[in-house]
Amino acid sequence: MQYFPNIPKIEYAGKNSRRELAFKHYDPDKVVAGKPMKDHLKFAMSWWHTMTADGTDMFGVGTMDKKFGGVSDMKVSKNRVGAAFEFMEKLGIGYFCFHDKDLAPEGKDLKTFHENLDVITPMVKAEMDRTGIKCLWGTSNVFGNPRYVHGAGTSCDANIFAYAAAQIKKAIDITIEFGGDGYVFWGGREGYETLLNTDMGFEIDNLARLLTLARDYGRAQGFKGCFYIEPKPKEPTKHQYDFDASTVLAFLRKYDLMGDFKLNIEANHATLAQHTFQHELAVARVNDALGSIDANQGDPNLGWDTDQFPTNLYDTTLAMLEVLRMGGFTTGGLNFDAKCRRPSMTHEDMFLAYIAGMDSFAFGLKAADALMKDGRIDKFVSDRYSSYKKGIGKKIVDGKVGLEDLYKYALGLGEYTVGTSGRQEYLEEVLNQVMLESD
Amino acid sequence: MQYFPNIPKIEYAGKNSRRELAFKHYDPDKVVAGKPMKDHLKFAMSWWHTMTADGTDMFGVGTMDKKFGGVSDMKVSKNRVGAAFEFMEKLGIGYFCFHDKDLAPEGKDLKTFHENLDVITPMVKAEMDRTGIKCLWGTSNVFGNPRYVHGAGTSCDANIFAYAAAQIKKAIDITIEFGGDGYVFWGGREGYETLLNTDMGFEIDNLARLLTLARDYGRAQGFKGCFYIEPKPKEPTKHQYDFDASTVLAFLRKYDLMGDFKLNIEANHATLAQHTFQHELAVARVNDALGSIDANQGDPNLGWDTDQFPTNLYDTTLAMLEVLRMGGFTTGGLNFDAKCRRPSMTHEDMFLAYIAGMDSFAFGLKAADALMKDGRIDKFVSDRYSSYKKGIGKKIVDGKVGLEDLYKYALGLGEYTVGTSGRQEYLEEVLNQVMLESD
Amino acid sequence: MQYFPNIPKIEYAGKNSRRELAFKHYDPDKVVAGKPMKDHLKFAMSWWHTMTADGTDMFGVGTMDKKFGGVSDMKVSKNRVGAAFEFMEKLGIGYFCFHDKDLAPEGKDLKTFHENLDVITPMVKAEMDRTGIKCLWGTSNVFGNPRYVHGAGTSCDANIFAYAAAQIKKAIDITIEFGGDGYVFWGGREGYETLLNTDMGFEIDNLARLLTLARDYGRAQGFKGCFYIEPKPKEPTKHQYDFDASTVLAFLRKYDLMGDFKLNIEANHATLAQHTFQHELAVARVNDALGSIDANQGDPNLGWDTDQFPTNLYDTTLAMLEVLRMGGFTTGGLNFDAKCRRPSMTHEDMFLAYIAGMDSFAFGLKAADALMKDGRIDKFVSDRYSSYKKGIGKKIVDGKVGLEDLYKYALGLGEYTVGTSGRQEYLEEVLNQVMLESD
Amino acid sequence: MQYFPNIPKIEYAGKNSRRELAFKHYDPDKVVAGKPMKDHLKFAMSWWHTMTADGTDMFGVGTMDKKFGGVSDMKVSKNRVGAAFEFMEKLGIGYFCFHDKDLAPEGKDLKTFHENLDVITPMVKAEMDRTGIKCLWGTSNVFGNPRYVHGAGTSCDANIFAYAAAQIKKAIDITIEFGGDGYVFWGGREGYETLLNTDMGFEIDNLARLLTLARDYGRAQGFKGCFYIEPKPKEPTKHQYDFDASTVLAFLRKYDLMGDFKLNIEANHATLAQHTFQHELAVARVNDALGSIDANQGDPNLGWDTDQFPTNLYDTTLAMLEVLRMGGFTTGGLNFDAKCRRPSMTHEDMFLAYIAGMDSFAFGLKAADALMKDGRIDKFVSDRYSSYKKGIGKKIVDGKVGLEDLYKYALGLGEYTVGTSGRQEYLEEVLNQVMLESD
Repeated sequence: MQYFPNIPKIEYAGKNSRRELAFKHYDPDKVVAGKPMKDHLKFAMSWWHTMTADGTDMFGVGTMDKKFGGVSDMKVSKNRVGAAFEFMEKLGIGYFCFHDKDLAPEGKDLKTFHENLDVITPMVKAEMDRTGIKCLWGTSNVFGNPRYVHGAGTSCDANIFAYAAAQIKKAIDITIEFGGDGYVFWGGREGYETLLNTDMGFEIDNLARLLTLARDYGRAQGFKGCFYIEPKPKEPTKHQYDFDASTVLAFLRKYDLMGDFKLNIEANHATLAQHTFQHELAVARVNDALGSIDANQGDPNLGWDTDQFPTNLYDTTLAMLEVLRMGGFTTGGLNFDAKCRRPSMTHEDMFLAYIAGMDSFAFGLKAADALMKDGRIDKFVSDRYSSYKKGIGKKIVDGKVGLEDLYKYALGLGEYTVGTSGRQEYLEEVLNQVMLESD
Repeated sequence: MQYFPNIPKIEYAGKNSRRELAFKHYDPDKVVAGKPMKDHLKFAMSWWHTMTADGTDMFGVGTMDKKFGGVSDMKVSKNRVGAAFEFMEKLGIGYFCFHDKDLAPEGKDLKTFHENLDVITPMVKAEMDRTGIKCLWGTSNVFGNPRYVHGAGTSCDANIFAYAAAQIKKAIDITIEFGGDGYVFWGGREGYETLLNTDMGFEIDNLARLLTLARDYGRAQGFKGCFYIEPKPKEPTKHQYDFDASTVLAFLRKYDLMGDFKLNIEANHATLAQHTFQHELAVARVNDALGSIDANQGDPNLGWDTDQFPTNLYDTTLAMLEVLRMGGFTTGGLNFDAKCRRPSMTHEDMFLAYIAGMDSFAFGLKAADALMKDGRIDKFVSDRYSSYKKGIGKKIVDGKVGLEDLYKYALGLGEYTVGTSGRQEYLEEVLNQVMLESD
Repeated sequence: MQYFPNIPKIEYAGKNSRRELAFKHYDPDKVVAGKPMKDHLKFAMSWWHTMTADGTDMFGVGTMDKKFGGVSDMKVSKNRVGAAFEFMEKLGIGYFCFHDKDLAPEGKDLKTFHENLDVITPMVKAEMDRTGIKCLWGTSNVFGNPRYVHGAGTSCDANIFAYAAAQIKKAIDITIEFGGDGYVFWGGREGYETLLNTDMGFEIDNLARLLTLARDYGRAQGFKGCFYIEPKPKEPTKHQYDFDASTVLAFLRKYDLMGDFKLNIEANHATLAQHTFQHELAVARVNDALGSIDANQGDPNLGWDTDQFPTNLYDTTLAMLEVLRMGGFTTGGLNFDAKCRRPSMTHEDMFLAYIAGMDSFAFGLKAADALMKDGRIDKFVSDRYSSYKKGIGKKIVDGKVGLEDLYKYALGLGEYTVGTSGRQEYLEEVLNQVMLESD
Repeated sequence: MQYFPNIPKIEYAGKNSRRELAFKHYDPDKVVAGKPMKDHLKFAMSWWHTMTADGTDMFGVGTMDKKFGGVSDMKVSKNRVGAAFEFMEKLGIGYFCFHDKDLAPEGKDLKTFHENLDVITPMVKAEMDRTGIKCLWGTSNVFGNPRYVHGAGTSCDANIFAYAAAQIKKAIDITIEFGGDGYVFWGGREGYETLLNTDMGFEIDNLARLLTLARDYGRAQGFKGCFYIEPKPKEPTKHQYDFDASTVLAFLRKYDLMGDFKLNIEANHATLAQHTFQHELAVARVNDALGSIDANQGDPNLGWDTDQFPTNLYDTTLAMLEVLRMGGFTTGGLNFDAKCRRPSMTHEDMFLAYIAGMDSFAFGLKAADALMKDGRIDKFVSDRYSSYKKGIGKKIVDGKVGLEDLYKYALGLGEYTVGTSGRQEYLEEVLNQVMLESD
């Protein structure tokens, strides 16, 4: 059976095409920067937003059909498997990401949940085998159930820590079963509502304990992929311990986890932390910790996670520039952690939204490649720091001078000041020009 | 000569006193939590805001007299020495903090600057000897001069790195000369305006080089005090590398500087980073890195550093709670990095503002002590995590269980959920009650 | 039957009492500023948050029982009537506020909804008669159902406009039946998600049409109460047309609705609009448009409506100061549009939270009264503008001078400048002092 | 003499040109949407940022030379006249905007100031006559001098109100002398720092008095241009009375000033008020109050007025769409209220920055025209509201139905819901496509 009978296979139609259900920029096999676009971009479908999110928000119930004809919970879950793979095949998406809870109903207890999962996961695996679609990463939803109200790894109740550990074990098992390249931790309740009732130091130690246990288990089971932490500053809790990329780096270093963990950077979470998307990517990259990307966008005037489909071409261009600068993804990819706006309630909107997102990142890839080939920006940056390649600058970098040496040197500089401009406005015009020239 | 002839010595007059120029809560020798208030609070005057800031803002020129009768730059600097110590003596403030540039005019080059400093610092030292007032910490202003337009340690020009190093050397020398307990780095230009022209990784490496050189120099000169980094997320630059406490911790760990550096937490900088003041203090404390405090407050609706005098009693209470929890200050103290609002333009306002700030922190100390003595909040927190003191919780903490053990344990929990409330609203009422009861 | 069998009648126990289930400040019959506290404060229970909100958030399902033993939708609604009045009686709350949808299930269509309402409303009325509890205001939920996805009065579909009008008619009828003093419009979907698909001018005209029709209908039915608009800047939509108090005033003036409409100011909505609560109250007051208050608080670091119980005593004091300045409420009151934090999941927490909120506003009333009696702040303000009571100032106010007259006058002023301080820091210390002295 | 001897006349070189000092999109005489680009865009130079701002910020002194060889204040002012017109001629800018204080030094009192102005203004007039360059609007700086510390029209000191009135009279005289098309009020200090010392109602009444006096004087002197208020939410003061477009509309309606006043919308001020630039333009437009534009951009992650040159092509496209929708400017234009970033400190940067800004708006004009010609977005919007053109919708718009009619109608709708999508993601892809296709 078809779940999207009126939607054709989505094809590349060229940037000026007026066909709505067609790609304008994403041409999967076109070679850009040395390899096919699809290998650069590694698009993934997020099972949760795509297959389960129905437009419910805090002030209103769902507007979209995500039951795909199912009535019982299990039947809905089964139909979603079919719908998901039809959806990915029609869009030519090569990966998916999932929470345990996206795949099967939780039921009343852990045993039931895992029995339900054991029904659904073989169906997913069969579809993977049939289609060649892969798992980018898996994760466990240890935030939605009321039992996680005080946290999972940071819960004040040790039984809940155990419960979370158990869910994570199973989710790692499934990820390995699916041949997933990564496993993500997003700590939706790992934070606090008020410091009045919180022992912050103890909670963070416990969070590290949970991640260490998970890492040890995964490695013992032969998992070769990457563990990721996904930073987010707040929401649902007032403060989340994985606030932003730097905060997570401080945590990973403190608990000696840098060897196994990288970051999964989400655009909208960057916005909520008052950073640009590129900033968070760059922080991760210069610390050798850029693992994977949740591709979406937020609204700079809104203070919650809107998880909109990414259509801002500045953001996609500068994001892909960071990806190219790190030499491309290894285990990671671009997961559309994005949902249709609540008023975009048709199944056609799901496709239109993914097309908009995929085209925007495909454009971003072409533009980033063009920026590197154009070379004006890179050359400007390289020239800008050239004083560190010789003389006193080189000595500083090489650790050959002390503070007193520099003191004597500086005394000799007289009324020295900087005369070179940062040329921000010019560089912004260059960026515009190269973007508009891309393909 | 007197600089504030109409201002008497400020005395404690009791909480219901209507005397404007008197303390309502700050009773220096009153013993609270085992020692005199003055020893807990260790108030410091900030030389810059107090002696030099004249109310200039981006849209208007100064409204206040901070020349104290001086005409030439050097005469102004000299008069400020007298005014500063008269000010501190009248308020009973035991410490001051300074930038090199606060003390003496920069002149045209480094040599002139340091010659100017060599005239002023002995005058300061003499006043310190006369009054017993101490130096809490020193620092160097390597952000105001146009030469630091692209940064100091992170400048793209190696000569500027050297220039900053030279200023820092001299400022460390002066700090040692003053017997200062600390030396602060606030990287006002250590960040970027646009990633388009910035090599972030290289800049941060250079920042670490500068701090390492300064640490090595200071220790070689016998400096036993603490080095501090003061986090701030932005302003003047778009992004500053010392964004918040966690970001600085990531940096200190990466470059192996945790042994010598702690944090100087400023309330207003916390606000700008979307944190509460208490949050930043707690993050520093649980990482054994809470060094000193810049006592001020921001406006949650404003996006720049207003550096207002701290008068919100919730903030001062919760801040002092963190200080008491870490066992009090060692090298650090409460530095009023605060300025009168531009329309508070009289010398009397300077005193009224300090009185308001000192009273607010004195109240905070009393209230924090009362909260600890009351015990309801601490007991609630302790009880809340009690499941980790025995059974499965203890095994988790002691590292005696693996993920599979926890999986088996959790399967046995059945439909288990959390039933205990976080009781936030109740705890907020307790906080109000104890605060209102504080003497 | 009792719904809260373990909760006693909540009584005033004095500010130092350690009884958890007792008021510390709210002493209903105590006379403050000329009348009993209960008549100043006019507390109301919000039916939605109190009787229906179960802790669901965007990342997790409910944690609280709000079914009160009911199984079918109608039985739940009936039990809520009993629970609500028991709750209000035990707390001594004299008013309630409701949406149509809070009282009875919507069912599949309007006819069913209104039939359901016709079953429940007589039960409510009977309880009102039994207890003497009154209706502060009613409203209609025209935002939650999927049919309002594009707005109600601002929907692009005229049938939806009609549907909203029909719900409003019925809600006005019920409000009149209950003898309600007010009728509120909160336009949860009256805004836009993107300007790309929106005719803003047309939508706002339509919103005015809907409100005008409702006003005309209400008046024709004999409704003597006040219509209110409740400003909110955003959430759920990206932008809401009733952004803040000033925006609503612009709207009311444009469409000539000032005669019948006032504002219902909510603290958390003020925060979201980057205003203080007092600011929004003052804007309403100086425009003779302060009608009623939604008493809650937001978190300045969070960008969504947390609707927390109000416990910040600065906010409650300054809010009550505005209420006293306008001479007290007429039709309005203090409605707790507040919900327990998700981890405060017990029925006891509901009481503790209301106690905290009621005590905080009771304290605010006492403190505001003390501020007015203290007089220092009012006198300072009065003196500050005294130059307008005579001379050139009086002529300006009386409209007796033109620009050329003022030009000539100013030429005669010479090097005139302002010498008087705004004394903000001093006034903040006065505020603290008087608050701490309030009984 | 030449002030920018190394800068040639800036010419259009085509969108792919690599000439730095050339336009890529701005081709002044090219006809777009029926008239030459230069007539659509009406670019203006802001005297203040361009001729006087030297890169000073709150943490550092100036980095740029804006003295143009002058030593005395008057000589600097004279040289700026020459530099300004050379600058505008080289860029082909047809208009300028000024504050009184930009043109001549204030001196010690009003008399001196106006004598200084009387020296400079004829020099400006002569250059205007020589070059054909016009004045877009004038204004008076009644916020920078310490005397305006408590406000100008809202000062607590009546003498200051008079002083401001006198400055405004003279600035209006100069604007008329220059043949200016507009006169702007930006109330930089018309607001409050704290409500504790403020009589908000009285202050706003006084602000209205001042504007009314100015309007009456201007009209009496034969000024036919438009008066504008420029909204800004905050900075320098905590709260400014002209918060945003809607707030100003509320004010203009209350004091019956809509006939003479329109809005001057600034992009960065929109950002600070949590609005998009397009939102503020649209609000002004649908209220027939869009007068003129301050063309710049802010940084969504920064909370102060960065006044950056506008280079975001989304913003310029959507802004020009609003301008085209209102039929183009009448008295208004695009004033670059923008300054080079502090590290862009050369005179060449001034040109590069204007080029970037002018090109970005020229692109925006072309793209906005293309969007209208493409028609997909406009058609979608028109179709979306089509239900109001017939049947019940038409009756609603025509005022032919009451609430009871709609109630009966809605009862007949049964289980009616909305099925049409808002198609936001699709429309965003259309926007991207048309922008990239724009010449």
